[in-house]
Amino acid sequence: MKQDDISYVNASLHQYHDIGAGERGVTRPGYSETENQMHALFTRQAQSLGLAVYHDCYGNSYASFTKEPPVVLIASHLDSVVEGGRFDGPAGVITGLLIQKWNLEEHAGLPVTCGALRCEESSRFGHATIGSGLATGQFQIEDAGAWKDSNGITLAEELQKHENDGPVPDYSRLQEYLELHIEQGRVLEESRKELGIVTSIAGNHRIFLDLKGMAEHSGATPMNLRNDALCAAAEVILAVEHIAEEEWKEHSVGTVGVVENHPNVMNVVPGETKLRIDLRSQSADSLARMEEAVLMQTKQICERRGITLDVERITRTEPVMMNKDIAEGLMKACEAEGNSGMYMPSGAGHDAMHYAEITHAGMVFIPCLHGISHNPAEHAEAEDIVKGARAMYAYLKEEFQ
Amino acid sequence: MKQDDISYVNASLHQYHDIGAGERGVTRPGYSETENQMHALFTRQAQSLGLAVYHDCYGNSYASFTKEPPVVLIASHLDSVVEGGRFDGPAGVITGLLIQKWNLEEHAGLPVTCGALRCEESSRFGHATIGSGLATGQFQIEDAGAWKDSNGITLAEELQKHENDGPVPDYSRLQEYLELHIEQGRVLEESRKELGIVTSIAGNHRIFLDLKGMAEHSGATPMNLRNDALCAAAEVILAVEHIAEEEWKEHSVGTVGVVENHPNVMNVVPGETKLRIDLRSQSADSLARMEEAVLMQTKQICERRGITLDVERITRTEPVMMNKDIAEGLMKACEAEGNSGMYMPSGAGHDAMHYAEITHAGMVFIPCLHGISHNPAEHAEAEDIVKGARAMYAYLKEEFQ
Repeated sequence: MKQDDISYVNASLHQYHDIGAGERGVTRPGYSETENQMHALFTRQAQSLGLAVYHDCYGNSYASFTKEPPVVLIASHLDSVVEGGRFDGPAGVITGLLIQKWNLEEHAGLPVTCGALRCEESSRFGHATIGSGLATGQFQIEDAGAWKDSNGITLAEELQKHENDGPVPDYSRLQEYLELHIEQGRVLEESRKELGIVTSIAGNHRIFLDLKGMAEHSGATPMNLRNDALCAAAEVILAVEHIAEEEWKEHSVGTVGVVENHPNVMNVVPGETKLRIDLRSQSADSLARMEEAVLMQTKQICERRGITLDVERITRTEPVMMNKDIAEGLMKACEAEGNSGMYMPSGAGHDAMHYAEITHAGMVFIPCLHGISHNPAEHAEAEDIVKGARAMYAYLKEEFQ
Repeated sequence: MKQDDISYVNASLHQYHDIGAGERGVTRPGYSETENQMHALFTRQAQSLGLAVYHDCYGNSYASFTKEPPVVLIASHLDSVVEGGRFDGPAGVITGLLIQKWNLEEHAGLPVTCGALRCEESSRFGHATIGSGLATGQFQIEDAGAWKDSNGITLAEELQKHENDGPVPDYSRLQEYLELHIEQGRVLEESRKELGIVTSIAGNHRIFLDLKGMAEHSGATPMNLRNDALCAAAEVILAVEHIAEEEWKEHSVGTVGVVENHPNVMNVVPGETKLRIDLRSQSADSLARMEEAVLMQTKQICERRGITLDVERITRTEPVMMNKDIAEGLMKACEAEGNSGMYMPSGAGHDAMHYAEITHAGMVFIPCLHGISHNPAEHAEAEDIVKGARAMYAYLKEEFQ
């Protein structure tokens, strides 16, 4: 491994990190000015490698030697969760740039476009992988344009800005999509493997619950006369946890990440509590079972407590398989480069899942310390990014030379 | 009952309601511009009765025929919770004005001062009955000045404004404190009684809990490796409910009114959750038992889940007895006026509890529809305010003429 490559990765990570960094981690909402700055940096980095850069009408950025439609696209995202880490997204974008650098230096002539996709995290609009979903036609702008952030700003409004005035992307020649990402779990660390070759990406069902009880004086309302929305919500939170624990064999998970309590003052019994629930699994059956159980138990809890319930299904993605030939090719290349690899599923969603619907997709995971992600303590090694990039590059040379 | 009196009460309620009213109820934080407007209206109303109005250094307002220190103080508050009702507080202030009106019209010569106290609700500074607590010396400005609202503004900063530039109140001649308030419960309604004569006010222990787990990716973190702060908080919320239910014989209640979850986004396992707990009882023993049980169970929950716990005790008021002679006098006057009354405890805290520490205090409750309070649906009848005021006026004539 060349010291030059590690230095290139470290310097890039540093530059990306400086954008949107605060005391409690990086915050770069999708389609924000901060994300624009990340794409501007990507543009400068790509241009300094001698690449031509262009954008599509969804704000996604592409860099290649020509501006021809992509044949092999290597991409990831540059937005972040609120107070997240520096590797989630940028590690994969930097991988694309590094492969282009080798492609150029070694005159390899690989038909590669590297890219940076928009708004992969759901933190802002409640929907994940927006840039890739729109670009691949998996999301329709007629629906997605109406998605709002917590300030009531719609995605359509953001898309009218000048960063997003390119053409509809042309994927007619696309043969493969590759993405490197930090694992965001502890499987590689605990298995002591250097790279993960992803076999499938978990499906994700998201549910919004609005529980309405009665706001009353906390001192003068006897316990037996209350309709406390927060107590009902507490039961739902524990039910989600229990239901997901029961599905551990399918590597399923369930999380209540968001709670909004109303009026949320100390001397009023909570009158309304809203929850956002995130269910994920590699198995479509397990996902369906969990969703059904959560909705049934929530209904029972609300009936027993005299709480009115509104349910909205926000997101429904089913589990997606990565391309088997690509996965085997990546594993072979990984081992040929002298690294240890393992096949593994992805619990997190990634832009790759949308590309898997329109082309052949593959993903490489690198370890991240203690599996911590979406957190300022997120850490990965530049060496591992280079190892992952080398595996992809070797695989592409095998395929396209 | 004179139609004039009912009209006076209804017109007053209307004027007070217009200040701070929104679609979801009235919002008048203590020591805010909105509360200032309420006190300005009180001043105009008192002046139009021919009363002299003055303020103390904590912003409390007083109205009497002279500016002599009060002998009998009839008061309540003019601030509100977030999105509260129109009767909680103003009903008692209007009662004072009405009694002064009779006092004047009938040349009764009662040594009465009516008043409006500041910031009775804890919604803004996390502490209740601030104006009366400071005026009676139960709160020390050296401590209370540092209390902050959610914007970081301290009580000391608010007290420097011109509305609060009066003298330290002189209570050296104070013989009695009387207060009329809506019940904020369903006891009178269910007992079909017209007035409640309060025998004691519940003690109130408030606890702030900060639960710190680990913020991680909601898709890639297996259930068995999580330290989910919100799941721990959910167990605490249900424990508080259960502990209070066990103490029903003491009319004890326990409420988690406030939950703040961090980072509160859908794709991150909650890393930190803060709770504010409100425990109340007529029995000091029950209050102590509940607090001990909540803290012990919270500790166990956090230990089992690998959650770090910080505890802060915010408020500790013990149950307070109302003066027995005043209560009996009020009951006698109530019945002499042809109304039905009942002795009852107060679950809610009131300004009267601070005055009970420095003088003789009494309270009259009037029914409020279905016991709903701290809610825009809060409703009471102007007739009942007049009935309560008549009982107080008759009692005072008996005592002071």
